[in-house]
Amino acid sequence: MSFVNISATEFVSVLSSKAAVPGGGGASALVGAVGMALGTMVGSLTVGKKKYAGVEADIIALMEKATALQNELLRLVDADAEAFEPLSKAYGIPKDDPDREKVMEDALRTATAVPMDIMRACTRAIDLHVEFAAKGSALAISDAGVGVAFCKAALQGASLNVFINTKSMADRAYAEVVEKEADGLLTRYCALADETFNSVVNRLR
Amino acid sequence: MSFVNISATEFVSVLSSKAAVPGGGGASALVGAVGMALGTMVGSLTVGKKKYAGVEADIIALMEKATALQNELLRLVDADAEAFEPLSKAYGIPKDDPDREKVMEDALRTATAVPMDIMRACTRAIDLHVEFAAKGSALAISDAGVGVAFCKAALQGASLNVFINTKSMADRAYAEVVEKEADGLLTRYCALADETFNSVVNRLR
Repeated sequence: MSFVNISATEFVSVLSSKAAVPGGGGASALVGAVGMALGTMVGSLTVGKKKYAGVEADIIALMEKATALQNELLRLVDADAEAFEPLSKAYGIPKDDPDREKVMEDALRTATAVPMDIMRACTRAIDLHVEFAAKGSALAISDAGVGVAFCKAALQGASLNVFINTKSMADRAYAEVVEKEADGLLTRYCALADETFNSVVNRLR
Repeated sequence: MSFVNISATEFVSVLSSKAAVPGGGGASALVGAVGMALGTMVGSLTVGKKKYAGVEADIIALMEKATALQNELLRLVDADAEAFEPLSKAYGIPKDDPDREKVMEDALRTATAVPMDIMRACTRAIDLHVEFAAKGSALAISDAGVGVAFCKAALQGASLNVFINTKSMADRAYAEVVEKEADGLLTRYCALADETFNSVVNRLR
């Protein structure tokens, strides 16, 4: 089952149900992919324009990275659903089962790894948006702003799916390493996304 | 052509192209629908649980509103594409054509009305998330946080598609009325969304 090969209407419908997947992690990957696609769109509306001939090579290089990233984020929609499955099963193990803690701990690590990957992908998407907003066609500037707002929301959304899992981990040292990386990405990239969004608003109005 | 009946993979692909539609407005409506669906999911994971029997009637009422709103936002994805078409054509009218200004002004109003509707729908979605976060199952609290972050980003994204059009309007009095409403919604609902997101983070960590 792939959640990126069903229609948006079906995705929204299954997301809103009580089905275990997709959840907030997969939805974050999708919103990140949509956000990055808006960056690629800025590139698409910039290449071939005489006014932007001077940055054309840069834009083409950015578009290649952005296209790869939007495909990676689409892949992470399904990866999140797969990684959540063992955790979904682990919650069903009786609390007095001696294997429960080990199975649960492994499942929590697996379910945390994908939203961490989504977070890292969103930070790279925000970096690319900084460049699309600076170098892309002024006619498409609003799309760079919308895109960076989506990648920030996707970063924040994925972080909640990291924290809800690290909170339950027995291995606190491991949990803290993951939380520290997530907090570092949030601090740096929410600020960078806001700065980029605000620069777009200032140019637009 | 409906952009909500194609797969997420195809949506992201056509969004990233230089095709006139979908653009940032339609993408905002989609992200808003995904955000609202996460609220409905919180409801789906709350109803039928003994622990939440006391709020079950409230949750069912919230879910009805949320489902209607996510369908409205999906409808607005295609409505935005339709409303942009006349503007896309108006840009092609020669600058010395005496009819250009009138056609352009009408097209700008049409293209602005849909992102304003998307903004209004996102504010209602944020209001519903406040209640899902307060009353929904604690096990689904992260999904309420992710959902409200998406609805805020969708509100901001739609606003850029309002401002890029009002900026070009000849009728400044009309443009200012629209901008004033948009600014009012942004001020009130970005703050409410942040407050809700932060309350989720505080309960989660």
